[in-house]
Parts: sequence; C-alpha cells; structure tokens
Amino acid sequence: MKKKVIVETSARHIHLAKEHIEVLFGKGKTLTVRNMLSQPGQFASLERVDLVGPKKTIKNVLIIGPARKATQVEISKTDARTLGVDPPVKESGDIDGTPGIKIVGPAGEVTIDKGVFIAKRHIHLTPDVAKEWNLANGDIVMLKINSDRSLIFDDVVVRVSEKYAPSVHIDTDEANAAGCSGEVYGEIIIK
Amino acid sequence: MKKKVIVETSARHIHLAKEHIEVLFGKGKTLTVRNMLSQPGQFASLERVDLVGPKKTIKNVLIIGPARKATQVEISKTDARTLGVDPPVKESGDIDGTPGIKIVGPAGEVTIDKGVFIAKRHIHLTPDVAKEWNLANGDIVMLKINSDRSLIFDDVVVRVSEKYAPSVHIDTDEANAAGCSGEVYGEIIIK
Repeated sequence: MKKKVIVETSARHIHLAKEHIEVLFGKGKTLTVRNMLSQPGQFASLERVDLVGPKKTIKNVLIIGPARKATQVEISKTDARTLGVDPPVKESGDIDGTPGIKIVGPAGEVTIDKGVFIAKRHIHLTPDVAKEWNLANGDIVMLKINSDRSLIFDDVVVRVSEKYAPSVHIDTDEANAAGCSGEVYGEIIIK
Repeated sequence: MKKKVIVETSARHIHLAKEHIEVLFGKGKTLTVRNMLSQPGQFASLERVDLVGPKKTIKNVLIIGPARKATQVEISKTDARTLGVDPPVKESGDIDGTPGIKIVGPAGEVTIDKGVFIAKRHIHLTPDVAKEWNLANGDIVMLKINSDRSLIFDDVVVRVSEKYAPSVHIDTDEANAAGCSGEVYGEIIIK
C-alpha cells in the first residue's frame, strides 16, 4: 500500500512571542485570524510585518498564529540571499545558533538576536496513520514527488502528534525544484 | 565505482541571437567576454539586459555568449513568479510553446514571442566518460546530492558531446532545495 501524504508549501512566515506582538502592533493587541491552516489551531493572521535584513527588506511577511513562546522566522534560501543573512536548515523550535533580524510592525520594531532559519522539511502524521504505516516520531524517511521535475527528498523527518493533520511541509525553493503546483501528493519511502 | 560529476548552479541568463544583440546594444556590436564558463566556448558577457515581465522587471540579467540562432531566456520558477510569467520546464533549444518577454538593453528593446523557459536539469558528459560509465546521449538517470538537504533528482537527462566538459546543471531553486553551496558533486544513479 502506498503511503501518500499531501504536500504543502510553506512560504516565508513568522511566529511571534506574545511580548513581540505587543511591541509590533500595540499594547494589548493580539493576532486576527485570516484563515485557519491545515495544522489544527494554526492560522494565517491578517497582520503583517517587514523583515529588515542587512542587504534588503522583505515587506508584508505572513504571521502564523497563535503566539508562541519564542519568535521565529522561517524563510527560504532565496529569501536569505535577498535579506543578506545566512541561516542554517533547522527544525522548528530549535533556534540555537541561528542568526537574528530586525522585524518592523506598524507600532514598533523588534530586533531578535536569534530565530531565523530555513525550515527542515518534515512530515506531520497522526498517531493512527503513523501506526498503520509503521512509523514513529523522529523517523527519517524519503519522500518521492512525481511531477515534471520528479525527485526524491532524502532525510525527511517524521513528526507524530494527535495535534497534527497528515501533511508534508516543504519550502518554496523545494516546491519549485520539485515542480509542485496545485494539489500534490508525495509518497513516503521507508529507508 | 561511483559516477561523480561536479554540480554547477545556473543562475538566470539569456542567450541572444545576433540580430537581437545589435538591437539591444547597437549596430555592429558584439558581446564582450567577462569570463569563460565550464562548457568550452561559452562565456559570461560584460553586457547585461533587463527582463520586463507583466508583473515586475528583473534588472542586470547575465548574457551567455556567443550568439545563438534563437534568443532564449532561462529563469527559475522563483524568477517566473517575480516577472509574472508561467514558463514550462524545457530542454535548451526546445522553445516551442514557451512564453515570450520584453528584453531591454542600452540601445533598444526586443519583445520575443517565445523563448522563456525553466531549464530542465541535465548532465553534460564527454563521449569518453559516457562510454566508461555505460551511458548514452538522451539517457535518463537519477542524481544523488549529499548535503544538509540531501535529495535525489529523478528524471535527469544525459547529454553527450565532445564539446562538453563533465558537469551537472541545475537552477537556483534546485540548488537551494538541495542545500548546494561551494563545490558540490552529485552521484549518478542508473535507473
């Protein structure tokens, strides 16, 4: 049986700590839901911020809510070149050793000293699906994408949680390289 | 024995027909060599042009000389989104069914009605190396890249000619997705 999972492209986005939301948007302000995302509870917010790098600024960057413990900025390698920063490929939440950046909102600005990274591609699975496919949290698998630029992503980490919906997250560079457009499914290959 | 080939990232560039060089840079003008490239006879020119898409303009685009029979514009999917065009993935020289674009130089401008595409990744081999590896022109192989974003490109076409130097050509989106930086070698996997 083929292990097929929908592939979602994560464009550049920011997760903000509560105190940074207040600095950027004003005392007592919270994020406004624009639309809910595939991962339960996560939403794209109406609010936007600018990322100011040493080289250039990227304007109107999406904020994904709700607030998190620490502010983190997830960009592509292409964005990194535009901004003039050189962040590592990291898993979400693991921001040690990452560079910082200036974030500008309508009410103020914040310069974080770390938190900018390129998101390591990963697969979200529910415990039920993971069990059915004989996979566990932290497993490393391959993911095959069929398109006009077919490829196999190696070294894809599996994340299992009841809070997840099954989906693969790749960034815009990876989506472009794999020729992803429209609804795309990837096939998990166990190494 | 492992079949290792150096991986070169092709940034966006243009090949110009002789008549378009004259329109863009002036009557009787030719391209000036800035530096020679890995493929024998091919060079990066000092001259640059702007690509004017329906959405945005990309300035200072590299021209690769010498002049070719037909003008062609090789961009990444990221560039395509910036410009506002939707070109297919194609092999060099195969420009039927591709969109056109406006090209602007210091002496004039040209609007081509076709020629914009995303280059299909490919491997250049000399006949000697191809023979040693039991590969022929037009063969489709896989190419494995080891990095912090390891992946296997599927559907990579082999091009064999005495005019070539052994190298893999991928675009900037593919290089970013594969975590390529510095000198990178890919390993050919025969399907």
